[in-house]
Amino acid sequence: MHPLPFFQQQIEEEIQKLSFGKEPADLYDPVRYMLKLGGKRIRPALVLMSCELFDGNYPDALPAALGIEVFHNFTLLHDDIMDKAPLRRSQQTVHTKWNNDVAILSGDAMFVVSCQLMMQVNPKVSTQVMNHFLESALLVCEGQQWDMTFQHTVDVSIAQYLQMIELKTAALLACSLKTGALIANTSQENASLIYEFGRNLGIAFQLHDDILDVYGDEEKFGKQTGGDIMANKKTYLLLSAMELASTAQSAELNRWLTLTSFEGKEKVAAVKNIFQSLGVKEKTEEKMESYYEKAIAALHSLQADESKKEQLFQFASALMLRQH
Amino acid sequence: MHPLPFFQQQIEEEIQKLSFGKEPADLYDPVRYMLKLGGKRIRPALVLMSCELFDGNYPDALPAALGIEVFHNFTLLHDDIMDKAPLRRSQQTVHTKWNNDVAILSGDAMFVVSCQLMMQVNPKVSTQVMNHFLESALLVCEGQQWDMTFQHTVDVSIAQYLQMIELKTAALLACSLKTGALIANTSQENASLIYEFGRNLGIAFQLHDDILDVYGDEEKFGKQTGGDIMANKKTYLLLSAMELASTAQSAELNRWLTLTSFEGKEKVAAVKNIFQSLGVKEKTEEKMESYYEKAIAALHSLQADESKKEQLFQFASALMLRQH
Repeated sequence: MHPLPFFQQQIEEEIQKLSFGKEPADLYDPVRYMLKLGGKRIRPALVLMSCELFDGNYPDALPAALGIEVFHNFTLLHDDIMDKAPLRRSQQTVHTKWNNDVAILSGDAMFVVSCQLMMQVNPKVSTQVMNHFLESALLVCEGQQWDMTFQHTVDVSIAQYLQMIELKTAALLACSLKTGALIANTSQENASLIYEFGRNLGIAFQLHDDILDVYGDEEKFGKQTGGDIMANKKTYLLLSAMELASTAQSAELNRWLTLTSFEGKEKVAAVKNIFQSLGVKEKTEEKMESYYEKAIAALHSLQADESKKEQLFQFASALMLRQH
Repeated sequence: MHPLPFFQQQIEEEIQKLSFGKEPADLYDPVRYMLKLGGKRIRPALVLMSCELFDGNYPDALPAALGIEVFHNFTLLHDDIMDKAPLRRSQQTVHTKWNNDVAILSGDAMFVVSCQLMMQVNPKVSTQVMNHFLESALLVCEGQQWDMTFQHTVDVSIAQYLQMIELKTAALLACSLKTGALIANTSQENASLIYEFGRNLGIAFQLHDDILDVYGDEEKFGKQTGGDIMANKKTYLLLSAMELASTAQSAELNRWLTLTSFEGKEKVAAVKNIFQSLGVKEKTEEKMESYYEKAIAALHSLQADESKKEQLFQFASALMLRQH
């Protein structure tokens, strides 16, 4: 099996080759801009890896891999509008560089293009691939809506949070892997198991992200830590702290959450202090590891060449060790 | 062939039967709301009529008809955000009743659902139907972007305007008819001709709309006339006037277009006055009729039962005689 960087390179080259209409410029320039912002191309690389894992030819999976990457970038484009994010990968977001209307519409066009790419796979599997893709796309929309809803919901349970990240983050990772499996035409059981691998790994990935946002090494993480704490983001860490806190800790936590004016570093330190006294980091790591183990178990139990599986084990492990 | 109201009724019933996820409510409630606002269900009815015209069974075309109606409503939902429209069909628009973020995301979900419906047609034709649908969806996005771009473009030519309405309005009407034809599995030639019928009729339809906005009977039109004039909308009428105006008329027209404070009725009367002296209404009617005739010619030349064609002739003629 080819190594991950090879697949990432293939995707990068194919993205550069994608051609869009020239006009209207305000529709297609943002699409090109968004796709050239870069990123690790993890999802499309997983499509290709999964295809090879199940003895398929990776070039057969290229259109679907690109389709999923274009779709992922479409969701980022629309999410950035909703989050009012000024920057993405240190560059202006589309709605900042152009405007909201252009960002909405060029996002819509990207979604159309992603579907067109998905439809380019072998007709023998295209219906199955497309239906699975659309189902997953709807889950991603649901996840994004829950994320927005939770921002102004007082009582969010840990179970609800886990469901939200499963929809918003894990569903597309799992879909990427299953798509490669469908294209390789493997057994239904293998397709389900690789989906489970991706779903559990995706949840572990997001929990790891929550931890890094608080405890990451700022230099390696590439941005300031504590952002989630400052924004009162209901992460696994905060929700666990709320659940475990004594009455006094709860009052202290709520005081910080409701303060409208505060010194960022002071708030982060105070909340981290409460996290520490409650063992919240360890609790989150435990949860993360339990999902990671479920992912590994799914990968173990599927039928494929062990030497090929090895690369996915390595990928999963690297994802959990990453510092950014 | 069944009459138009029968098809409209079928669509209405099927739309009521569509089921969406219950939660998150802020994702699916706006979808239900939007689909229940009503409308004439012209596009999906055309899918069914075209299917019967070419000896197909209309129930085979129902999923695609619904898919096109859901897609059409998705475009209206996102267009309303961009136009900052407070009302649609006398009801609050989704972004007004909820907010912009909800409107963006529930629109995205509608687009996914429309694709899922399109994929439900017979697998023998689903790839062709889906690819044609996606191609048309991209044209609609292009049309909407041109429309927005033209709002702040000084020199818009009549040819550019015609291209814009072809993309924004005519492409989906034409797509609806061709979709029915593909599902009925008629000849490629018939499919192209019914597309041409829809494309030309769609352009005539939009030109008629431009005329009604200025010269419609307010009671029958259901809203105040002159809205386009007050908003300086670059319609076929205004662009023709700009092209035909003498230096003096041009100056007078520009004075009204650049006034930031004016009495609506006075502006409308003044601009209509210029229109009249230039014969702009008649010129637009001529153009509309030339497209209408091209539509009729395409319908004449396709191979189908004449008695069935008759209903589409009647539909086209009613569309041109409508007062609202």
